[in-house]
Amino acid sequence: MDSLKKTILEKIKPSEQEQADLKFVADELMYKIDSLTFKVGLLGVKSQLVGSAARGTWISGTHDLDIFITFPDDTSREDLESYGLSVGRQVAKEAEHWDEHYAEHPYVKMRYKGFDVDLVPCYRVSSASSILSAVDRTPFHNEFIIANLNGLEDDVLLLKQFMKGNGVYGSELKTEGFSGYLCELLLINYGSFEKVLEAASDWRPGLLLDILEHGKQKFKDPLTVIDPTDPKRNVAAALSLDKFCSFIDVSRSFIEAPDEKMFFPSPLSPISDSEANERMADRKTTILAIVFETPDVVDDIFYPQFAKMENSVVPMLEKSDFTVLKSGKWSGDESVVVIELMAGILPDVKRHRGPPVWVRSHAEKFREKYVDNEDAYSFSIEDGFYVAEIPRKYASAKYLLESELKGCSLGKHISKSVKDGFVILEGKNILEIEDVGFRSFLNGWL
Amino acid sequence: MDSLKKTILEKIKPSEQEQADLKFVADELMYKIDSLTFKVGLLGVKSQLVGSAARGTWISGTHDLDIFITFPDDTSREDLESYGLSVGRQVAKEAEHWDEHYAEHPYVKMRYKGFDVDLVPCYRVSSASSILSAVDRTPFHNEFIIANLNGLEDDVLLLKQFMKGNGVYGSELKTEGFSGYLCELLLINYGSFEKVLEAASDWRPGLLLDILEHGKQKFKDPLTVIDPTDPKRNVAAALSLDKFCSFIDVSRSFIEAPDEKMFFPSPLSPISDSEANERMADRKTTILAIVFETPDVVDDIFYPQFAKMENSVVPMLEKSDFTVLKSGKWSGDESVVVIELMAGILPDVKRHRGPPVWVRSHAEKFREKYVDNEDAYSFSIEDGFYVAEIPRKYASAKYLLESELKGCSLGKHISKSVKDGFVILEGKNILEIEDVGFRSFLNGWL
Repeated sequence: MDSLKKTILEKIKPSEQEQADLKFVADELMYKIDSLTFKVGLLGVKSQLVGSAARGTWISGTHDLDIFITFPDDTSREDLESYGLSVGRQVAKEAEHWDEHYAEHPYVKMRYKGFDVDLVPCYRVSSASSILSAVDRTPFHNEFIIANLNGLEDDVLLLKQFMKGNGVYGSELKTEGFSGYLCELLLINYGSFEKVLEAASDWRPGLLLDILEHGKQKFKDPLTVIDPTDPKRNVAAALSLDKFCSFIDVSRSFIEAPDEKMFFPSPLSPISDSEANERMADRKTTILAIVFETPDVVDDIFYPQFAKMENSVVPMLEKSDFTVLKSGKWSGDESVVVIELMAGILPDVKRHRGPPVWVRSHAEKFREKYVDNEDAYSFSIEDGFYVAEIPRKYASAKYLLESELKGCSLGKHISKSVKDGFVILEGKNILEIEDVGFRSFLNGWL
Repeated sequence: MDSLKKTILEKIKPSEQEQADLKFVADELMYKIDSLTFKVGLLGVKSQLVGSAARGTWISGTHDLDIFITFPDDTSREDLESYGLSVGRQVAKEAEHWDEHYAEHPYVKMRYKGFDVDLVPCYRVSSASSILSAVDRTPFHNEFIIANLNGLEDDVLLLKQFMKGNGVYGSELKTEGFSGYLCELLLINYGSFEKVLEAASDWRPGLLLDILEHGKQKFKDPLTVIDPTDPKRNVAAALSLDKFCSFIDVSRSFIEAPDEKMFFPSPLSPISDSEANERMADRKTTILAIVFETPDVVDDIFYPQFAKMENSVVPMLEKSDFTVLKSGKWSGDESVVVIELMAGILPDVKRHRGPPVWVRSHAEKFREKYVDNEDAYSFSIEDGFYVAEIPRKYASAKYLLESELKGCSLGKHISKSVKDGFVILEGKNILEIEDVGFRSFLNGWL
């Protein structure tokens, strides 16, 4: 295990030169910010390097710098936003390119000397429980990790890479996995990379980790890790049940047979037309794809809508008696929801169960509507209920989607995009989508 | 309504001549029995006419006579059976043909001067609550009805004919409908044919009718009618929920639009090949028929087994992911269970959900079995559970039935018959069954 860890670290731990380069650029940027604020008389405003760069837990090749511009907590929100942005803009003058983003406050993102730099204004408050905006918490995280990690930085690198390799790293809404801070806390809690994996092998949903033993609030998340800097917050709130379970699964596999490949799995190759057709022919199911242009919004806005779309379309199909075996989704320039059905075409006859015969007023209405209905196939009593056999409105799943997709609950931006146009592809026609990203996804899904 | 009732009664009420004929034959037989028993010194043994013939509630053309040979209650069971049968055999000497049947006691059934006669030995006990065998209750029913019907005989005839016309008359296990005694009690309870139908229009399951207000025991049947002669017995115990509801349904229809046709509906004609094929083509479903030779047992033995067969085969199909739209059954020389499926062929791929990932020992076993299984299509985690896509054992419903029918819970006699041979017919092949009875059934079912 030790030699395996060493092999991995050789690949992912920044070299001394790489570390020096990062430190140099970070120092340069902080010096610029501090000189600027001093020059314009912004007393009490200070720059601070936070995140993995500050903690020595960044993976070689990832060149992200999070530099916070911290303001005294009696600054008005208006001043913080305008001065913060103005400082950012000044610094960005020398960037290769930059733009402004809007989270709780506006902030500047820039590309500078090969680094992706966020210049984020925040309040400098006395404790994490008295923060004025969400980002104010970050410096406290920084402080706690630096004070407690005690030489576990290499193990953090290993855990992050292991999670990346297995698709569970990242707390953004696209991934719903483990954040960097969560990795660091898991190491502080368990003590080493192997111990985290050994513990995870026996995790069950509902697990509570409370390093400082100060949590009081209950959370319903699969995993609760009480934030040492703020007992009311669950650091693992973004982790989905399936990513929680995936991590349990891969931890067990690794413990049983440690293997470098689990850190660096080879990506799935794009599936060819012939291979895809062969697999579809093997399965003998009906595959449908809903294809629309990806709306131009950030991932954290898009992915929840994308999930909502899937959770709206699948029940619609099921309500119309189609049996959905599975569904999946992929997004690039176009977005695609793929759905596998037992059958894409159902019989014309549909059984429509009415009220119990003894509920007289409802029963009489139902009877009147269907008993001599020319379109109905039959009318009978089963288990005490009236049952009419009537023609099915949508015998084709493709036609159902074409007709009713716009009426589904899709979220604002996807709804607009779908209204602008979409197509439903069936069977081998899904191979009209040639995007290699989609084809790689399909290779795993099909 | 009165003129309609009159019209119906003209068709179903026995003429004076028919009544006189029946009385003559009944008296003749009872005289024979009493002379016989007197001759051989069976003191205290007396014959008694019971049933609808005794109560004047028999429908013209139905020539059934139930004559009981009643023994004192201190007779041994052995003596009752041997003497009872011996008397029956003597009387039957003059019958056109006769045979012996076995219920709780052996008894003689014979065809005599155009009448179907049962000669049944029973105990003459002091009250219906102290009976020694099930048939001992009948004389008490007779007594209660004769004492309470008070001129409602014609209404009983109407109600029986109405129930016959609508398929709900008869408490044998083939029909699970209303017995003659139950019809009589309903009339005593409600007062007239119309009042029974009006009340039934508002019936709900769980209804309790207790004419003498002496019932104590609770019954879970759809309808409970406490036996006036035995408070522990529900006279409507054999009535199924669907026959109960059918009667509610037809009662409402008749009250709304009284029509002679509801008493004498024209029987369904046998469906032709072309009509059947057209209907199947319209429905676009898969129809299967299980055909086997009807075992040589009485209906009350056969029909519960036949129902058991249907209730065993349908879940087996559903367990293998086939969607059963409806099922039905018919029996003549051959017996047939017909089943309509959404589709008779399913995709080869089957989703097999395993244990939750966090239940470690089960999860590890499931994983080991399927994760690198060459036959498996995929292995994944969904909603916290492992899911393996595996090849379906039975993609064809016909093949499933052919392979597994013998292993189903079928009941003793049907099981034997099925083991001797059966066929599964699919689609238009069901028209290989040309029996007109089956074709009439199919006309209603399809």
